[in-house]
Amino acid sequence: MKKLEDYVENIVDFPEKGIIFRDVSSVFQDKDGLKLAIDSMLKAVEGLDFDVVAGTESRGFLLGMPIAYALNKGFVMVRKKGKLPREVVSKEYELEYGTAAIEIHKDAIKPGDRVLVVDDLIATGGTIKAAAELIEELGGTVAKMIFLIELEDLDGRSKLEGYDIESVIKYKGK
Amino acid sequence: MKKLEDYVENIVDFPEKGIIFRDVSSVFQDKDGLKLAIDSMLKAVEGLDFDVVAGTESRGFLLGMPIAYALNKGFVMVRKKGKLPREVVSKEYELEYGTAAIEIHKDAIKPGDRVLVVDDLIATGGTIKAAAELIEELGGTVAKMIFLIELEDLDGRSKLEGYDIESVIKYKGK
Repeated sequence: MKKLEDYVENIVDFPEKGIIFRDVSSVFQDKDGLKLAIDSMLKAVEGLDFDVVAGTESRGFLLGMPIAYALNKGFVMVRKKGKLPREVVSKEYELEYGTAAIEIHKDAIKPGDRVLVVDDLIATGGTIKAAAELIEELGGTVAKMIFLIELEDLDGRSKLEGYDIESVIKYKGK
Repeated sequence: MKKLEDYVENIVDFPEKGIIFRDVSSVFQDKDGLKLAIDSMLKAVEGLDFDVVAGTESRGFLLGMPIAYALNKGFVMVRKKGKLPREVVSKEYELEYGTAAIEIHKDAIKPGDRVLVVDDLIATGGTIKAAAELIEELGGTVAKMIFLIELEDLDGRSKLEGYDIESVIKYKGK
């Protein structure tokens, strides 16, 4: 039986030399890969007490919505700056070169909400840290953070100390 | 009991004067709204014979993945130009001002595949038409196109003649 990592395409020297890009589109393209991916994420939150799922644009959308639907929760979009139409809270974070900003609708998280944060991949953890700060700014709590893929050498966990983090597949190297 | 349209936020004069923006983020934020949205889409494809779901970046991702998971199909990302890491087919289409391009991985659709095309909203139909052409270029057939929202006055259907189209909520006006 194929494992989840068998569905991941490893693209050498993309987007630049020395990087192996872990492509999840090949996982989702395959009906067995997709089922295995979502089932693995659902297993990671078995028994977890939470109110709502938050997923970051745009691959966090892919994983967050089926989890929310399967567990009858709402889904909150974490979007890049300027894309959400109603009143937002906004957070800047650092990239390798320069900064970016993400936003959440103000009414998307209610004080006391326990939020499950979902993304396809954790690398340096910058975006997810900013998302967690927005959730907390609105009075919510991060119940757990789950990822399909973790790039261990980029050490996102050190930036996210104190959070409950689980990833399905772990890779060494960048 | 609340209907699906009760969960849609109608934002007047966004993104510009004279437009009413139909915001689906408020649907997904609410667990009952999200369930109703996905269940309505699933109802629209009951009994449909198809192999794979295709969804356009990024709100088509939100709806397409739970449908694919619920019906045990694969999911194909239709992305903006330059975002997919493997070999793609690409299609330009016209916007109100200028053009844009979307892409699908070449190996995402196999000849003979029957493809369910999913998006949150149909307006002029330009993006969806381009997505259908890419699917057909790869030897696939569009089994059906489903939308949560249709803006009838923008007449996307005239551009998509010959396709089986279903939308859950229809609005007059722009």
